[in-house]
Amino acid sequence: MFDISLYLKDKKAEVENVLFKQLPSAPDCPELLSEAIAHAVKSGGKRLRPILCLAAAEATGGRWKDALLPACAVEILHTYTLVHDDLPCMDNDLLRRGVPTVHARYGEALAVLTGDALLTLAFEILTQTPLEGTITTRLVSELCKASGATGVIGGQVKDILLAGKPSPEVIHYVFEHKTADLFRAALRMGSIAAEASDEAVESLSAYGGHLGFAFQIIDDILDADQATEDEKPELSCLAIMSLTDARIWASEHTRMATKALENLVGDTTPLKAMADMMLERII
Amino acid sequence: MFDISLYLKDKKAEVENVLFKQLPSAPDCPELLSEAIAHAVKSGGKRLRPILCLAAAEATGGRWKDALLPACAVEILHTYTLVHDDLPCMDNDLLRRGVPTVHARYGEALAVLTGDALLTLAFEILTQTPLEGTITTRLVSELCKASGATGVIGGQVKDILLAGKPSPEVIHYVFEHKTADLFRAALRMGSIAAEASDEAVESLSAYGGHLGFAFQIIDDILDADQATEDEKPELSCLAIMSLTDARIWASEHTRMATKALENLVGDTTPLKAMADMMLERII
Repeated sequence: MFDISLYLKDKKAEVENVLFKQLPSAPDCPELLSEAIAHAVKSGGKRLRPILCLAAAEATGGRWKDALLPACAVEILHTYTLVHDDLPCMDNDLLRRGVPTVHARYGEALAVLTGDALLTLAFEILTQTPLEGTITTRLVSELCKASGATGVIGGQVKDILLAGKPSPEVIHYVFEHKTADLFRAALRMGSIAAEASDEAVESLSAYGGHLGFAFQIIDDILDADQATEDEKPELSCLAIMSLTDARIWASEHTRMATKALENLVGDTTPLKAMADMMLERII
Repeated sequence: MFDISLYLKDKKAEVENVLFKQLPSAPDCPELLSEAIAHAVKSGGKRLRPILCLAAAEATGGRWKDALLPACAVEILHTYTLVHDDLPCMDNDLLRRGVPTVHARYGEALAVLTGDALLTLAFEILTQTPLEGTITTRLVSELCKASGATGVIGGQVKDILLAGKPSPEVIHYVFEHKTADLFRAALRMGSIAAEASDEAVESLSAYGGHLGFAFQIIDDILDADQATEDEKPELSCLAIMSLTDARIWASEHTRMATKALENLVGDTTPLKAMADMMLERII
């Protein structure tokens, strides 16, 4: 019988093993910068997006090992967004996963530059795959589109500008771009690295988009339980719907995510289990 | 007879024609983000690095048009560094080229995100060249290495950390990485896009490194003329040498830049003229 906990633990170790080797060190770069980069990357995290990237390769009948570097690129990209989102001019968070954020420990200037270095590193990692040049170019293109002005950054801009004015349109835009775009990219990149068919890439892309929505809705539900009065308002789907409706919405996206896996030729057990597990967080 | 002013004017127009078409616009991304991006990119500038990229393609016997997208990528990368360097936590500059900086006009959060979007866009532009996949991958790799933790960002980190403690080693590190690395990348990328030989790429790389040093030395000399008492200290080579020695140092780098062009098979007239012109700024 398939054990999702064991799968996640195993794949997290495989990802971190490669991930930590990609980080720059002194004297190639300033000591303090390499420290700040390592602090950002090694401060925990479930490594959900890179594991999805590996599972996508398997779901198309490919080898998960072929997706290891793209998986690391996605995780590094995700880490940069956290470092910049935590900045005083954004969310001004001093702690993340129980440890000081990069700007809290190393100062604001170094935090901006650490995020910049991670963003650049994500693309550098992609150039190191032994894949064909056209596939590498496609991976770079996918990550750029998902994370740029029309993707994650666009989502973050709307989040900042409109956190105080939630509407169904705003919630949809922010969930779509700030969260779902990178989930989608993780799945697309894993399947592209495994040289999957265009149909398979699109199926996994649909899975990723729905899983991203489910993830964000559930995040809002869990945040609502922990919210304290003095926190500044954050954009939440609970501003426009009841807790019950949010739960139904999340389960609907999870169902659609699983449905998108139907025609794939590889092993989709891990992806199905991850969708189920995500929903169990709120039930 | 070759007219360098006309060449620069002509090539600047060619670069900007393509450059401005690469910028994202609403509704693909939030309106305010597209405005801030356009503000950063369209606020003047000599377009020196992209023109060097085009001239590098010509110097190897290739066509400058083949280097247009790489040239735009280099300029967009350079623009992101300016946006982040101007931030309150870095140089806190409110004006650049006589117009408000991005954070002065759009706020700090949007300035961080505008820089992030530009950095991402630089790589996206490279994926759009009609060049072979292996060449595109090489261009992405070159730009990552030049601009990442071991390149421009490393240089900026040292600049911030050690501006008050100038030494020959610090000056050399900062000039090498904060300035010369991107000049070098512009030349390398232009020649790689033109499918030049490895020898030609290295010759142009040497030209770019020396020109970058000359540029930074001359910048420090010109800045010294304009400095006012109340400005915070900036790292300058004049902290460790006399004005006369700085002039000699700049002219030495210019001479070595020109010498590096000797064995190239294409037209090196524009690159020679640009080296001469740079030196004339201080004589």
